[in-house]
Amino acid sequence: MKEKFGALPYIYPIPIALVGANIAGKPNFSTIGDTGLVGIKPPVIYISLHHNHHTTIGVEQNGTFSLNFPSTDMLTKVDYCGIVSGRDINKAALFNVFYGDITTAPMIDECPVNMECRVIQKVYIQHRCMFIAEVVQTYVTDRYVSHENTPGTILPLEDLDPILYALDNCYYRIGKPIGVGYNAGNELNILESKK
Amino acid sequence: MKEKFGALPYIYPIPIALVGANIAGKPNFSTIGDTGLVGIKPPVIYISLHHNHHTTIGVEQNGTFSLNFPSTDMLTKVDYCGIVSGRDINKAALFNVFYGDITTAPMIDECPVNMECRVIQKVYIQHRCMFIAEVVQTYVTDRYVSHENTPGTILPLEDLDPILYALDNCYYRIGKPIGVGYNAGNELNILESKK
Repeated sequence: MKEKFGALPYIYPIPIALVGANIAGKPNFSTIGDTGLVGIKPPVIYISLHHNHHTTIGVEQNGTFSLNFPSTDMLTKVDYCGIVSGRDINKAALFNVFYGDITTAPMIDECPVNMECRVIQKVYIQHRCMFIAEVVQTYVTDRYVSHENTPGTILPLEDLDPILYALDNCYYRIGKPIGVGYNAGNELNILESKK
Repeated sequence: MKEKFGALPYIYPIPIALVGANIAGKPNFSTIGDTGLVGIKPPVIYISLHHNHHTTIGVEQNGTFSLNFPSTDMLTKVDYCGIVSGRDINKAALFNVFYGDITTAPMIDECPVNMECRVIQKVYIQHRCMFIAEVVQTYVTDRYVSHENTPGTILPLEDLDPILYALDNCYYRIGKPIGVGYNAGNELNILESKK
């Protein structure tokens, strides 16, 4: 039996990222869950921000931002960066900030994975600004890279230890691997094709 | 030390969902990871599909689709629905299909959470079709709803037991809860405000 919950956008889990942007030349970071993959080739992602969000000013000004994926040991700072505004607090002081090829997309050294992004399309829906962006460069902390083979590969999610979120307002840890993509369904593929 | 990985859209984790659409009046389901939250109020989500994707035809025709979040016991079928096309296989036969208020957004009864969605904006980026949609109605299987309080609340993610994915091409299970949103950072909030 199904129960109706009204118009609830219950996507789960929600990945937690820190968006980095320069505002009036200074780095600022904000925690969001409104981010996701648009496509791998071309490498496109999006973020969605409230139009009043301090970070929105920087993304509008520069057309660039960063995405930084924290690990669970950063939870206190990550949650804090979702509570307070860069208008009031210099949140960049909480982290070791670095820049890559783009000079207006500040990144957080402590996060295992960082992406520099350039806006290619904007969509405004009521008070939300959706910035669709191409990934320009991706940075991974070397201790999260395996060099057993060439080129190096990024370690499994258990090692990256990301922070997940859900609309029950809880943060979660990642669990165990349970299968390989485009493989776990092969058994059924063989069965069906014999029919 | 950071290592450069090129333009890699390494969002993680990626939520795994089955998109439901009617094509020429028949239900079809496809597994995707290119989905996420745009905003809670208004309740807006998106999906991104290859323009050649069989499901794209249905979403373009009807302007509607469903999002269905499977649990890990459905992994074989879920992966299979990402391997084969609705052009060749009647994937709806794998599931108990139901419809809600929208007659062109088929949903999967076995999935704990389902959403009926109506497209409000389309964005075309090279070969990708990004459908931004409002959630019209959300359905939750009753055994995943707690009625300890009124109104009922959806059980934690460990109970919903979703399938996660990453660009290492592995599926993962959800882990343990580690904190409460807009709360885990309060300790730091107090510290900083005393400065």
